[in-house]
Amino acid sequence: MAGLRIHSVLVTGANRGIGLGLVQHFLGMPTPPQWVFAACRAPTGQRAQELQRLASKHRNLVIIPLEVTDPASIKAAAAQVGEHLGGSGLTLLINNAGMVILNALDNETMEDMTRVYTTNTIGPLLMGQVFLPLLKEAAQGSPGSPLSCSRAAIINVSSHGGSISSPAGWDLMQIVSYRCSKAALNMLTKCQSLRYKEDGILCVALHPGWVQTDMGSSAGHMPPVTVDESVQGMLKVLSSLSEKDTGTFLDWEGNGVSW
Amino acid sequence: MAGLRIHSVLVTGANRGIGLGLVQHFLGMPTPPQWVFAACRAPTGQRAQELQRLASKHRNLVIIPLEVTDPASIKAAAAQVGEHLGGSGLTLLINNAGMVILNALDNETMEDMTRVYTTNTIGPLLMGQVFLPLLKEAAQGSPGSPLSCSRAAIINVSSHGGSISSPAGWDLMQIVSYRCSKAALNMLTKCQSLRYKEDGILCVALHPGWVQTDMGSSAGHMPPVTVDESVQGMLKVLSSLSEKDTGTFLDWEGNGVSW
Ligand SMILES: NC(=O)c1ccc[n+]([C@@H]2O[C@H](COP(=O)([O-])OP(=O)(O)OC[C@H]3O[C@@H](n4cnc5c(N)ncnc54)[C@H](OP(=O)(O)O)[C@@H]3O)[C@@H](O)[C@H]2O)c1
Ligand SMILES: NC(=O)c1ccc[n+]([C@@H]2O[C@H](COP(=O)([O-])OP(=O)(O)OC[C@H]3O[C@@H](n4cnc5c(N)ncnc54)[C@H](OP(=O)(O)O)[C@@H]3O)[C@@H](O)[C@H]2O)c1
Repeated sequence: MAGLRIHSVLVTGANRGIGLGLVQHFLGMPTPPQWVFAACRAPTGQRAQELQRLASKHRNLVIIPLEVTDPASIKAAAAQVGEHLGGSGLTLLINNAGMVILNALDNETMEDMTRVYTTNTIGPLLMGQVFLPLLKEAAQGSPGSPLSCSRAAIINVSSHGGSISSPAGWDLMQIVSYRCSKAALNMLTKCQSLRYKEDGILCVALHPGWVQTDMGSSAGHMPPVTVDESVQGMLKVLSSLSEKDTGTFLDWEGNGVSW
Repeated sequence: MAGLRIHSVLVTGANRGIGLGLVQHFLGMPTPPQWVFAACRAPTGQRAQELQRLASKHRNLVIIPLEVTDPASIKAAAAQVGEHLGGSGLTLLINNAGMVILNALDNETMEDMTRVYTTNTIGPLLMGQVFLPLLKEAAQGSPGSPLSCSRAAIINVSSHGGSISSPAGWDLMQIVSYRCSKAALNMLTKCQSLRYKEDGILCVALHPGWVQTDMGSSAGHMPPVTVDESVQGMLKVLSSLSEKDTGTFLDWEGNGVSW
């Protein structure tokens, strides 16, 4: 983690769960980012109280309103982030916001398939498009240097449940809408890596582990990994990423996950 | 192909391209199916003329109205098919209908992402759900026998373009909405294979090759494979499928495609 020196980071779904854990760990780093943008859809609400508390203590933390399924909201967020950055670019975009609906295959519906895909797959696509100019700006700050999270990167928080070859946890939950959305997110990550390489932006899909959050325990089981362990692991992985990793699918311990 | 003896088959998107080719080849088999259901969304229109001509010659061909993005249309189609079958079950469901929109990553939109996903991924999901009772009925006709296309099967026509590890044709076209939808269709196929195995239904994702159809040539290139070659190859593959193949991703020549 010593190697992870980033100028600025934006985390989506930052008000609870893994997103909140990421924000806390970024703020607590020995050399914290100059800007930590914590994006969430209800910044003044009950669910963002911990973020508000943190913001009152950390001047480098900015809470940004963001609904990832709303293109206008994404554009407004990028404009606000751009103003704060004042030309220095955004180093790291972490597409963490996500949702699950606990349907079995037999009762999966068109509506739930669409809702989950819109949040988990289309959201990260639109985020990448709209924040591209800011990410490029960051990459151009260190021209010619190899891809890394310290230069410019998009991290899509995916899931082992989106591994087609070994769809983790099938016996516990079928969640076809979620699995399809994460397999598609993995494909999006590959496409982003191919397209954005020339812009100096690294793109990786990251499985956070099975983590003790609302989502992790939504099927009534106790996940083995704490938010702190997951986030610490992921930050270590981020610090180690280089050119060869762009377009890959890794877990929070740095192991490759099969597509 | 000698081994492929199926009682009944339904092909979606059967009025042109690969779907029409499949129907023609089924009708022309030495031992043709007792029922060939050719599903298309405008059965009386200009675009279904060849199907109408075939139906006037082949008493085992039934044209079924079907819009795969409309749950009510799918239910009506299943009811109609069920009436014809009169309790004997549907042996083979081929989810062939599909669409592409030629966007690059930079101009992909929420609307196009949703439209393509609804057609290419949600459609096959709903088809599997609604036709499940008919497929089960077919499987129960040969209880205890191993999985095969002669017993009961769902074939999802996928694409090498949906391979995350080697997204074919990236330099020609980015088509992110299409790639994401086909990666998700591959995941759906895996989920269907896990869920429907106990019902005696084999599930496979099949890449038809790069084929001379409206879709195949939509980016202005001449595809190398004719519809006849593709369909002949796919039928040979279908005839060879067994228990070990369920949940896999194969191409029209029988080669495994990596996820
Ligand atoms: N926990 C696990 O075991 C696990 C395993 C594999 C992958 N993951 C992935 O890790 C990521 C974080 O999961 P988590 O466990 O922290 O989930 P969580 O506790 O349920 O939190 C989800 C976060 O995403 C936000 N969000 C959802 N939809 C949103 C939208 N449309 N716009 C903006 N924000 C939205 C939520 O905001 P609100 O508070 O406003 O709802 C919340 O902040 C997800 O992508 C998930 O798929 C988690
Ligand atoms: N051609 C290739 O090189 C290639 C390569 C890889 C995979 N594939 C896959 O092969 C399958 C067939 O492709 P093709 O080349 O034959 O395409 P095509 O010539 O464009 O024909 C597409 C067919 O799908 C039907 N369809 C589209 N949307 C539909 C909907 N919502 N409801 C019902 N029917 C619908 C169309 O009906 P209308 O006539 O009413 O529009 C048409 O019959 C697709 O799944 C495609 O992704 C093709």
